[in-house]
Amino acid sequence: MEGVKLELFGKIKKNPIIIEGFPGFGLVSTIVSEFLIDHLNAKPIGKLHTTKIPPIIAIHQGKVIEPLAIFYAEKENIIILRAIASVNKVEWEIAQAMLDLCDKVNGKEIISIEGVGSEITEKKVEPKVFYYSNDDKKKKRFKEIGLKPLDEGIIVGVTGTLLSKQKDAAFLFVESYSNMPDSRAAAKIIKVLDKYLNLNIDYKPLLQKADKFEGKIKDILTKGLKAVEQKEEKESYFG
Amino acid sequence: MEGVKLELFGKIKKNPIIIEGFPGFGLVSTIVSEFLIDHLNAKPIGKLHTTKIPPIIAIHQGKVIEPLAIFYAEKENIIILRAIASVNKVEWEIAQAMLDLCDKVNGKEIISIEGVGSEITEKKVEPKVFYYSNDDKKKKRFKEIGLKPLDEGIIVGVTGTLLSKQKDAAFLFVESYSNMPDSRAAAKIIKVLDKYLNLNIDYKPLLQKADKFEGKIKDILTKGLKAVEQKEEKESYFG
Amino acid sequence: MEGVKLELFGKIKKNPIIIEGFPGFGLVSTIVSEFLIDHLNAKPIGKLHTTKIPPIIAIHQGKVIEPLAIFYAEKENIIILRAIASVNKVEWEIAQAMLDLCDKVNGKEIISIEGVGSEITEKKVEPKVFYYSNDDKKKKRFKEIGLKPLDEGIIVGVTGTLLSKQKDAAFLFVESYSNMPDSRAAAKIIKVLDKYLNLNIDYKPLLQKADKFEGKIKDILTKGLKAVEQKEEKESYFG
Amino acid sequence: MEGVKLELFGKIKKNPIIIEGFPGFGLVSTIVSEFLIDHLNAKPIGKLHTTKIPPIIAIHQGKVIEPLAIFYAEKENIIILRAIASVNKVEWEIAQAMLDLCDKVNGKEIISIEGVGSEITEKKVEPKVFYYSNDDKKKKRFKEIGLKPLDEGIIVGVTGTLLSKQKDAAFLFVESYSNMPDSRAAAKIIKVLDKYLNLNIDYKPLLQKADKFEGKIKDILTKGLKAVEQKEEKESYFG
Amino acid sequence: MEGVKLELFGKIKKNPIIIEGFPGFGLVSTIVSEFLIDHLNAKPIGKLHTTKIPPIIAIHQGKVIEPLAIFYAEKENIIILRAIASVNKVEWEIAQAMLDLCDKVNGKEIISIEGVGSEITEKKVEPKVFYYSNDDKKKKRFKEIGLKPLDEGIIVGVTGTLLSKQKDAAFLFVESYSNMPDSRAAAKIIKVLDKYLNLNIDYKPLLQKADKFEGKIKDILTKGLKAVEQKEEKESYFG
Repeated sequence: MEGVKLELFGKIKKNPIIIEGFPGFGLVSTIVSEFLIDHLNAKPIGKLHTTKIPPIIAIHQGKVIEPLAIFYAEKENIIILRAIASVNKVEWEIAQAMLDLCDKVNGKEIISIEGVGSEITEKKVEPKVFYYSNDDKKKKRFKEIGLKPLDEGIIVGVTGTLLSKQKDAAFLFVESYSNMPDSRAAAKIIKVLDKYLNLNIDYKPLLQKADKFEGKIKDILTKGLKAVEQKEEKESYFG
Repeated sequence: MEGVKLELFGKIKKNPIIIEGFPGFGLVSTIVSEFLIDHLNAKPIGKLHTTKIPPIIAIHQGKVIEPLAIFYAEKENIIILRAIASVNKVEWEIAQAMLDLCDKVNGKEIISIEGVGSEITEKKVEPKVFYYSNDDKKKKRFKEIGLKPLDEGIIVGVTGTLLSKQKDAAFLFVESYSNMPDSRAAAKIIKVLDKYLNLNIDYKPLLQKADKFEGKIKDILTKGLKAVEQKEEKESYFG
Repeated sequence: MEGVKLELFGKIKKNPIIIEGFPGFGLVSTIVSEFLIDHLNAKPIGKLHTTKIPPIIAIHQGKVIEPLAIFYAEKENIIILRAIASVNKVEWEIAQAMLDLCDKVNGKEIISIEGVGSEITEKKVEPKVFYYSNDDKKKKRFKEIGLKPLDEGIIVGVTGTLLSKQKDAAFLFVESYSNMPDSRAAAKIIKVLDKYLNLNIDYKPLLQKADKFEGKIKDILTKGLKAVEQKEEKESYFG
Repeated sequence: MEGVKLELFGKIKKNPIIIEGFPGFGLVSTIVSEFLIDHLNAKPIGKLHTTKIPPIIAIHQGKVIEPLAIFYAEKENIIILRAIASVNKVEWEIAQAMLDLCDKVNGKEIISIEGVGSEITEKKVEPKVFYYSNDDKKKKRFKEIGLKPLDEGIIVGVTGTLLSKQKDAAFLFVESYSNMPDSRAAAKIIKVLDKYLNLNIDYKPLLQKADKFEGKIKDILTKGLKAVEQKEEKESYFG
Repeated sequence: MEGVKLELFGKIKKNPIIIEGFPGFGLVSTIVSEFLIDHLNAKPIGKLHTTKIPPIIAIHQGKVIEPLAIFYAEKENIIILRAIASVNKVEWEIAQAMLDLCDKVNGKEIISIEGVGSEITEKKVEPKVFYYSNDDKKKKRFKEIGLKPLDEGIIVGVTGTLLSKQKDAAFLFVESYSNMPDSRAAAKIIKVLDKYLNLNIDYKPLLQKADKFEGKIKDILTKGLKAVEQKEEKESYFG
């Protein structure tokens, strides 16, 4: 693992589940991780360090949004990695860092969340969720929940590299928009995770909550873009 | 071998033959390796790791298509390297990794498959196959099969670098289209390999099968292009 | 800390306060550090070395303006880092160097100064100052001084990376212009620092002095830009 | 010597002469080395390895043309380095590798061949040859042969870097075209080498032979360009 | 000092003075060093090696002009570094190499020559020379000679980085043209050095000599540009 360092500062019980999602289509995984951290009241227990991501940090509702933060929900024994930064060019190293994390905490399983391109544009149609794993138990479980396997697809980014390195992890793919945060897709994934992990999530306010997190992420991203533009302008000053 | 790491996780008999092909003209070598893996029922026994290839993974017919996978047909004692990813800028290191693989498994010989540009555009004309090797036994054998030596040509990519590093390997070049998957050329190579290695391939369904694999590769590539475009779009989001 | 080296050549008392600011919006932090160095009669005690910043040095009023200099006000036991150079691409390493400095001198606290974008264009409106820290004592103290917490924002550059690495530091953000030195914002920060650190700064000439340093910085930057342009022109000469 | 590795696999007598030429103006040195290898019936005895040259290999008349090959004419005790690849960005390392080769084989002298820009466009005018060396014996010898010293000039590429590192080597410069293989200039250099080294070259067929090698090099280069273009086209496929 | 290596092959007396100048405004320092080497009959005693400068060497009046050469005038005990190559991107390392040289030879002092932008365009007006040093003895001495301190300025390139690293060196700045060799400015610096170091330079032919060296440098640079253009053209050939 060159260029990415794992830091853990909290205590973790045996065999936790690790849920990770890097900003992809519809930013589904970022919205999902935000939702889970909030719902499960997960606490920060670590982060990934790398000098290869942009020097950009968001503050939202008075809290620092770490670019690559690791949270822990003790009761449910779930680790959640929330990524908000672009990890362009370090995807292979980040995937390796996820496996190192799993090794270190003796993780029970890794669940990876990803959006996939979709033809759906109508808001009303419910997005489909697909799974991938070469672990038979997981396959069976996902079928029971009613998911279909992802038979065809091109997976880019950290999810792609993790797919190459750890095929028996659980990969969940949800149809989503490619170029805007998609709370509907995120809500659908949360329903699936609820069934898969028995999280007892209250379904009714789910979409509103996902909407709220979509708004939060959208807000951070819009400001982020503006900040980056201003930074570039500023840098033309000197040197 | 800097930047490329070889991983082998299966058992291999003494002195296997190694067939390798990196995506080149007409993607002939990728189609050929797909065909052989299917026909010989070869199993994954390793892969090449490098952080220098794009973070893109294909899933096809429910299976992960590793970017640089190594398969093994035990009965025929043949190792097949199937490359689907661009190895742009690491060609010299990849060729070295192939030699390291050959050393490690005590390989009998390396057979390299490559397409070469051709003037043929008519579907009906059968593409010609050329060989290169500076090993006299191989030369004799290829002549017996009816191939002509490649006397003039410029070979780019991994095949080029392997040609520089290991001249007594067996290099097979088939005329093919430069800018689209070419199943006809692949089928022709398979016929040659059948004769050279006595693989007992059923000739009749050969072209149909090669067509099928051409379709598969074409499909993966088309989706890959789209995914890369969407990834780039997405990355303009943040940082 | 790869690529950035800390050098200290002066003696420092126990538990100094460290004030740092890298050129950001309105160059507030550079103006502030200039002001403090002058007002507290701080002496050079070190610098940061890196080959990754541009080879550009300013001479002003007969003195070399180091790109990344460390000053020390012995009486007040305050270390001031004054940065004039762009640290583009080494922000993470610079933040780490700041923490290393703090460790080495057993620093009491780090205070980070940053400008943030603002809608204000009228000269008369007083810029607001916000704080961030996850240290409760500091939060309380800043509230007493009358500051509001920064609840929403995107922080770029060294301040952003320091925010990621050391959340219990004291971060001060002042509304400022994005694309020109802003003495008003700097003066406002100095008032806040005066209250926070009891520096006994004479308020009356404050704005004039800040104006003077604004002029100095503006002057250096304007000449810097010109010098860089001439350097580039010259380099087209040979090689 | 970072990034360039010397491999020697043949036996070499004491104190050989080393002739080297990298593709420069008129590709004179490449044509010359081709001619000498053919005329002296030199055999491959080594090569330079580097991952920093393009992955492109030519096959010509059924033989692999190594990008950076070392040949040896045993009877005449002459080592010939034939370079066909661009060594852009590794010129300093390549020059060092030449010196290491000289050290390793206890070389008697290094002779470097280079084309220099010329105003001559008429085919009939015979190109002039200049020399450079700070070794008095060589100077005397070159004067006897009728050459003039190169008093003014800018030497780029490996010859330039070798000139910096080993001033007592023998440098031969011939007027040649900058942008097309120039057999006339090459023939002229061969005449000079013949006199300087007493090679007993049959003058009559010299120009025809040089023409032949010009044709060969031109052919390889034309195909090379086409291959590179096709490679780039192909690479837009995937990743 | 990463990437730059110092080589010394001559004998040097104790505590020499080191004069260095890298090609800057008006190429003053290069002209000055040329003049001094000629006038003091200085001999080559070393050079700086780096693979990071362009592979371009000039031959002038039958002599190789090293890109980064070190000369020694034994009688006057003066070391002169003459730089003709662009050291773009290695300025910090070169400055460190200068300090290492000074350490190694137990140098008495470093004198750095640099041109600074000027409004003067009329040939008749005499350019002014400024100094910088934080060493009191040097300051006093320069005042006696009639120089003014450089109070304001932006110094780019190696002189800038040396200014950051060694403030008690002697820095001389002369007003000069930014985009053409300026012999007048060079002559003025030589007058100052003559007074400062008591070199007994014959004033009368000074300007003519400086003019001659201006012509030499101009000539080398013009040819250099042309050579670089031709090199780039040539490189489009292959790979």
